[in-house]
Amino acid sequence: MKLLRIGPVGAERPAALVDDDHYVDLSDIVTDFDEEFFGSGGLERIAPIVAERTALGGAPLGHLRIGPPIARPHQIICVGLNYADHAAESGQPVPDEPILFTKSPNTLVGPDDDVRIPRGSTKPDWEVELGIVISTRASYLDSPEQARDHIAGWVVVNDVSERAFQMERGGQWLKGKSAETFNPAGPWLVTQDEVSNVLDLKMWLDVNGVRRQTGSTTTMIFDPYVIVHYISQFMVLEPGDLINTGTPPGVGLGFDPQIWLQAGDIMTLGIDGLGEQRQTVVGPR
Amino acid sequence: MKLLRIGPVGAERPAALVDDDHYVDLSDIVTDFDEEFFGSGGLERIAPIVAERTALGGAPLGHLRIGPPIARPHQIICVGLNYADHAAESGQPVPDEPILFTKSPNTLVGPDDDVRIPRGSTKPDWEVELGIVISTRASYLDSPEQARDHIAGWVVVNDVSERAFQMERGGQWLKGKSAETFNPAGPWLVTQDEVSNVLDLKMWLDVNGVRRQTGSTTTMIFDPYVIVHYISQFMVLEPGDLINTGTPPGVGLGFDPQIWLQAGDIMTLGIDGLGEQRQTVVGPR
Repeated sequence: MKLLRIGPVGAERPAALVDDDHYVDLSDIVTDFDEEFFGSGGLERIAPIVAERTALGGAPLGHLRIGPPIARPHQIICVGLNYADHAAESGQPVPDEPILFTKSPNTLVGPDDDVRIPRGSTKPDWEVELGIVISTRASYLDSPEQARDHIAGWVVVNDVSERAFQMERGGQWLKGKSAETFNPAGPWLVTQDEVSNVLDLKMWLDVNGVRRQTGSTTTMIFDPYVIVHYISQFMVLEPGDLINTGTPPGVGLGFDPQIWLQAGDIMTLGIDGLGEQRQTVVGPR
Repeated sequence: MKLLRIGPVGAERPAALVDDDHYVDLSDIVTDFDEEFFGSGGLERIAPIVAERTALGGAPLGHLRIGPPIARPHQIICVGLNYADHAAESGQPVPDEPILFTKSPNTLVGPDDDVRIPRGSTKPDWEVELGIVISTRASYLDSPEQARDHIAGWVVVNDVSERAFQMERGGQWLKGKSAETFNPAGPWLVTQDEVSNVLDLKMWLDVNGVRRQTGSTTTMIFDPYVIVHYISQFMVLEPGDLINTGTPPGVGLGFDPQIWLQAGDIMTLGIDGLGEQRQTVVGPR
């Protein structure tokens, strides 16, 4: 299934994608794609209904707003420096074990929503990433293999970052990761069964039509199953939690001279089979 | 008001304290002390009803379990090294601006619940702290003074930490802060009007009856209003969010030789006017 949420901010309706241009509404059988939904076996429950409805065709997406494909999660956890070539461009060593940090859950926005530069920002930057959505509570998993049973699916995310806030304001990274609108996600949550090999997906990001990031999940240091297994040793993952798995090379920080986002810029990005995003960068409010 | 939540884990009922031994139930007028409650002016709405009911006396607390005084928040944000003498004992410089990190929101437990040592832990440690509960959405506050209007009140927290996970496992601190049961809070949320000067509260923590931490909010580097103002420049604080404001000296990390928690230890801790906690440390599950 490809699951999405359609409608105005804060009033999105759960739906499933039929084809690139059509969807079926699920709001009569699903309240939201949230912790309660995933944690109560919602994916399994709706699968036959979605199959039935999509077989009959759907309504046109047209210009409806697409929101993030999941409700605001309990937590957004990010993995840092998870591509060897991105670590190099950031001037950081390849980590021995996953570096974890968090973003405020309220940074989550839709795939085509505006990204707002925060006040005082001098170094706003982009990061295309593969996102993992957790399906069932995960704690002390025995193996990476076991993580498969706790993953709902995959989603494109843009882990927008403010590098000065992240690295020049003392200590920890979340300061540069948590501004409003800093986590576009979607357009859809693609369930595991729809992706034959998540370890071989091409990903890309353009700014104003210029290719900036080109990568593939083949070059991840820690793969998604290793990551979920690893995190579960330190904390309890809740249904609906989102994990951003790190970005390939080509972020603004890595250019010489460095390139930062400006109001008016257009970011387009995507991952094979998971869909595409398009955000306009806007100035501080 | 002193607000609390009484009952079994996951089924706590909102209540208000009458005196040290009595409470009045509020579950007929409040669903929970959560984001919706604080964000919709819940504190102002219940104040006259609480006054009326407490004037009539209340039911005995007896041996009822007290849960955390707020529902699981959108975010738990922590301030690191916020007491000059604690920074010194940790071998860290006094920060120029607040160091921020997060704990998983699902670490929140009641003030007298067990604290569980995580698997693989070698350096579990304690931290008595003043917690701030946010009342209304806070973004780009103009001044620390303005933060007063966004604070619901104060709460005792034990910011339990695993120092090896925090400092020896790569990069960011959340790894050592987010294990299950690592954030006892309560017994009550004390509203701002009940505390004449939050900048002059004594705090303490004992392990097995031996005094380990002695401190006072007088020696905080960044006071609670400065902290809320500061955080609001980087992210949006939501109603019901919890901020742990840092710990005074006397953590296990700071002793020579260092002292770590063991299964069977009893932690007791408190802050003047905000109540006391008592946790039994238990082994990994």
